[in-house]
Amino acid sequence: MLIDIQQANANAIAAIQASQPVLKGIGTALEVVPGMKKNLILHAGPPITWERMSGPLRGAVMGALIYEGLANTPEEAEKLAATDKIEYSPWHEHDGVGPMAGVGTASMPVWILEEQKGGRKTFCTLNEGLGKVLRYGAYSEEVITRLKWMETVLAPVLKAAIPLAPEINLKNMIAQALQMGDEVHNRNKAATSLLIRELAPAIVKTSFPETDKARVLEFMHSNDHFFLNLSMPAAKMMLQAAEWIEGSTIVTTMCRNGTDFGIR
Amino acid sequence: MLIDIQQANANAIAAIQASQPVLKGIGTALEVVPGMKKNLILHAGPPITWERMSGPLRGAVMGALIYEGLANTPEEAEKLAATDKIEYSPWHEHDGVGPMAGVGTASMPVWILEEQKGGRKTFCTLNEGLGKVLRYGAYSEEVITRLKWMETVLAPVLKAAIPLAPEINLKNMIAQALQMGDEVHNRNKAATSLLIRELAPAIVKTSFPETDKARVLEFMHSNDHFFLNLSMPAAKMMLQAAEWIEGSTIVTTMCRNGTDFGIR
Repeated sequence: MLIDIQQANANAIAAIQASQPVLKGIGTALEVVPGMKKNLILHAGPPITWERMSGPLRGAVMGALIYEGLANTPEEAEKLAATDKIEYSPWHEHDGVGPMAGVGTASMPVWILEEQKGGRKTFCTLNEGLGKVLRYGAYSEEVITRLKWMETVLAPVLKAAIPLAPEINLKNMIAQALQMGDEVHNRNKAATSLLIRELAPAIVKTSFPETDKARVLEFMHSNDHFFLNLSMPAAKMMLQAAEWIEGSTIVTTMCRNGTDFGIR
Repeated sequence: MLIDIQQANANAIAAIQASQPVLKGIGTALEVVPGMKKNLILHAGPPITWERMSGPLRGAVMGALIYEGLANTPEEAEKLAATDKIEYSPWHEHDGVGPMAGVGTASMPVWILEEQKGGRKTFCTLNEGLGKVLRYGAYSEEVITRLKWMETVLAPVLKAAIPLAPEINLKNMIAQALQMGDEVHNRNKAATSLLIRELAPAIVKTSFPETDKARVLEFMHSNDHFFLNLSMPAAKMMLQAAEWIEGSTIVTTMCRNGTDFGIR
C-alpha cells in the first residue's frame, strides 16, 4: 500500500490548527489522569529507570515520595525509589506533560484541559514558582510544604473559581500573549497576567476565606511562570490532535528526561 | 541677561527623567484637587467658554451637572451651563489631566499620584470604559448611573485596596507595559493587566462585600483602557517636573479642548 505523505501531513496540520484547548478545571492526579496509581511516578521525557536517572530527576522523585507520605526521609525515599514497589512512566503516556523533571504523583492537583468541542483531555501539575522547587530536583521541607499548600489551598480555590469564570480558550490567550512579548516557555509574564485578570473575579466569588483568596492571587502574581503549566498541556493537546495519523512525518512530541531525548 | 538654553534644556530633561510617579491613592476631587469648587467644571485642553465649546465637551458638561445634582434634565443643564453660576477651568491649571472631554467635577473620585520622594501630586478621574461615556460627551441615564457606581463602589474599594498593595511605581509599570506592546494611550492592555494583578490581592483584603470586590475586578478586566487615566497623570507628573525652568524650550504640555489647541 502506498501512503500519500503530503496529504497525511496536510491532515496533521489541519488537525493541529483545528484544536481548541480550553481550561476545564482542576483535579487530583489519581482521580483524573488515565492509568494513575498510588505507587506510580510520572516524569518528563521518554521512559527511564531509576538507575539511569539524572540527579535532578532523582531528587524530584525523592521529594515526591516524601510528599506522598511513602517515605519519611530523603534516605528512605532514595532506597524505596530503587525498588520495584515504585513504578515510573512518562507523562506523555498519560496525556500529560511535565516541566523540567516533571514529576507527578497521585495526590498532586493537575490542570485539566479539554478540546472545546469535547473529547480529548490533557493534564499538567501546577507551577510552583522559581528557586527551590521539585521540578528542579529540590526536596527540602520548604518544597514539600509549598506542594502541600498547593494541594490544600491553591488547587481547591482555583478549582472552585474556574466554573465561575468565562470559558478560557488557551489558544486565544497564548495568541494574545505572543503579541505581548511572551514565548510562553521561559517568558510567561503576559499570559500569567491575562490568566490572573480572567480568574480574579471568580476567585473572589468562591466561598473560601479571604486570606486564602488573597494568598492565591499573591502566589500567582509572584510567579510569572505560573502560566507555563497551561501553555505546555495546551501545546500537547494541539499536537496530540496530529498523533498517529498514518503516513504523517510531523513530529508531535519532543521530550527529554535529563538522560535521554525522545521524539514521537 | 543671557540664558544658556542648552543648559536649561539639559536641566529640564534631567528633571523629567528623575521624576518617579507613584500611585498614592484615591480621593474626592473637591477634597484633594487644588482650587476645586462645587460649581467648577474642569476640562481638557486650554481655557474655553461655554459659547465656544464643541458638542462633545458641552455634552460632558451637561452630564456632569446632572451627575452633581445641579440640574435634573439635559435642558436644565444646558441653560445652567451658559450662566455665570458655573465656572470652567482647565485640568492643567489644577495639576491634573482629563482624557477626551476630560470633564471633572467636585464629587468625582480621582487618582492621586505623588512623586516617590514626596511633594508634587497630579490627578485624574477614573476611566469609565468605552462606548457611551461622559468623556465622549454622553449624558444618558446609563452614563450617570455608571459614574455614581464608580463614586460609591469602585473608588472606595480601590481607595481601601491601594494602601494594602505594594507601592506601585507607575513609571516602572509603564516601562514594562511598553515592552509588552502598549503605547499606554490607545493600547493599555498590558498596563491594565499589570495593574489588576498588583491590586487584586489587596482588593480581596478589603472589608467590602464579595459582590463589590468581584464587580470591581470585573469592571477593570472589562476595560483595557482602565490604565489610561493613570498613564496620563503619570506623564503629567514627569513633564511637570520640567515646567517653568527658565530658558528651557521644551514643551511640557500639549492639549486640546475640541476647539483650541494649547502648549505650555
